[in-house]
Amino acid sequence: MPARTSSGLLDLITVFDNAPLDFELNHDPYYTLILAPDNRVHGYIHPNTIACMPWPASFSINHTTRQVTLSPPPSNISPSIHANTAFQQAVDAAIDGSIFPTLNGLHSEYFLVPGARHFVQIERFAATLFGIATRGAHLTAYTVTADGELRIWVARRSKTLHTYPGMLDSTVAGGVKASDSPLDCILAESMEEASLPQSLVAPRVRATGVLTMLNRNPRTELVHSEILYTYDLELSGQGDEVPRLGDDGEVEEFVLMSCEEVEKRMRAGEFKTNVCAVIIDFLIRHGKITPENEPDYVEICMRLQRRLPVPTRADV
Amino acid sequence: MPARTSSGLLDLITVFDNAPLDFELNHDPYYTLILAPDNRVHGYIHPNTIACMPWPASFSINHTTRQVTLSPPPSNISPSIHANTAFQQAVDAAIDGSIFPTLNGLHSEYFLVPGARHFVQIERFAATLFGIATRGAHLTAYTVTADGELRIWVARRSKTLHTYPGMLDSTVAGGVKASDSPLDCILAESMEEASLPQSLVAPRVRATGVLTMLNRNPRTELVHSEILYTYDLELSGQGDEVPRLGDDGEVEEFVLMSCEEVEKRMRAGEFKTNVCAVIIDFLIRHGKITPENEPDYVEICMRLQRRLPVPTRADV
Repeated sequence: MPARTSSGLLDLITVFDNAPLDFELNHDPYYTLILAPDNRVHGYIHPNTIACMPWPASFSINHTTRQVTLSPPPSNISPSIHANTAFQQAVDAAIDGSIFPTLNGLHSEYFLVPGARHFVQIERFAATLFGIATRGAHLTAYTVTADGELRIWVARRSKTLHTYPGMLDSTVAGGVKASDSPLDCILAESMEEASLPQSLVAPRVRATGVLTMLNRNPRTELVHSEILYTYDLELSGQGDEVPRLGDDGEVEEFVLMSCEEVEKRMRAGEFKTNVCAVIIDFLIRHGKITPENEPDYVEICMRLQRRLPVPTRADV
Repeated sequence: MPARTSSGLLDLITVFDNAPLDFELNHDPYYTLILAPDNRVHGYIHPNTIACMPWPASFSINHTTRQVTLSPPPSNISPSIHANTAFQQAVDAAIDGSIFPTLNGLHSEYFLVPGARHFVQIERFAATLFGIATRGAHLTAYTVTADGELRIWVARRSKTLHTYPGMLDSTVAGGVKASDSPLDCILAESMEEASLPQSLVAPRVRATGVLTMLNRNPRTELVHSEILYTYDLELSGQGDEVPRLGDDGEVEEFVLMSCEEVEKRMRAGEFKTNVCAVIIDFLIRHGKITPENEPDYVEICMRLQRRLPVPTRADV
């Protein structure tokens, strides 16, 4: 096999999926989060967070083993209520004290702790403080022309958004709320962000897999696992089947781009970082990135589904 | 999240992908294979193989570090010729001496050592003795009926085959020869096994990704990494576009099955073990297995692209 240099696609994945591959084994200086009596690790917490968080009494911290443990639920309280109350107390106190810039002083919607044995929820903005896995869902809408050319509907994020303003994004994307399934998220966001009604999307949308990443924010140093459910939606039929700006003001415009243009803009750094993984996975599944044209093909596929250092479901 | 039991699909993957997830770190009693001066591990060799192989002088064995090292190439010999000659000497002597049942006393076609810095080939039957990663390619041909029902063309292996006689298989599958690309393999095998000519397949076949597995044969205890390139081919058009028995006698029949029937027969153990991964991946990409109907969805996706304990390309 002749030596070939990287095409750079792997580097695009690494911008977001940037924590070491052996993080689960070597996670100093992070503390692990345990939800007793479950002894699996559900999160990784930075020492600065350990020091600043107004921990409620139900959490105990061991600085020798670098472990934060939520106490087992008392016999008269359900495990869900015990855990949810404890996390809420911590988040409320942190917001009241304006302790973490990550929280922006605001409350947010609830996310799930995906691997917990019981229903445990935590506010979205706080999830990364605890290093808990977050769930997102991304929809790629596309058209196929009569002569077989594939084009992708790309969203440009509003310039007024707090995160990644003005950058290119999946057609539709959102965080999966605690009580929602990934498909619930896609159906709701399709209407809110892209004016694509459930009656159009539900019969045609196709779940296509999941991408897993481990991000270490270079500025805050917070680490969290990301679970991104991917969906495809072909919009090649007749009629008014195109994404249009929704009411929520999160999108500035939708642009139909050739695969070549998407790849070019991705390499130019115009896409939100984790969306590069969604695009690369889409281009692989649709036969645009192949073993013949991509020297890092096998490594890219392994990285798109990298093993996460937290459980993704209850161990039942 | 309420506790849900496994659907059993993960167990089907584990029948073939059965080596521990931390094998790279804990691979006793296996010896590692080094191709000096490259110090990365390209294979894992069982102690029985170490003891029985008629090692040529270019290999040195360290029983303390459990390492087999192919010497660096002499300055007047190319790295490829040096390595290929050394492996060929070992394989020739092993076959001549009828030492390993795995070799069946026969020579075979050549496979690539995928992560080697130079072109290194080894006979197919011998690759697993050295614990080298092998490359395969699988094509799933399918039809979509007018009302959207997806059906899969399943091959039944000939009862006269040495491996997995009579079991169900991908529409077309084969090992990727050393000098071939995965697509070359698919185009050749499509004609040989299924009478699907290149003129039909080439314009329509779609590369869809790669599956990675780590198999430990329960009988021989040989360990090897498997890299399976996947391809889809839709055959829903008019005309004689169906797989028909080829000349090579490897297939007994082709049967068009609903996804439900494929899944049922897979659970009944009728499919060749590594083909279950190909089918599960196909059903995920086509939206038949979803986050809503499969509790192990995220774990399955991570397992289908598990990290291999050998490099998959040159480290250039």
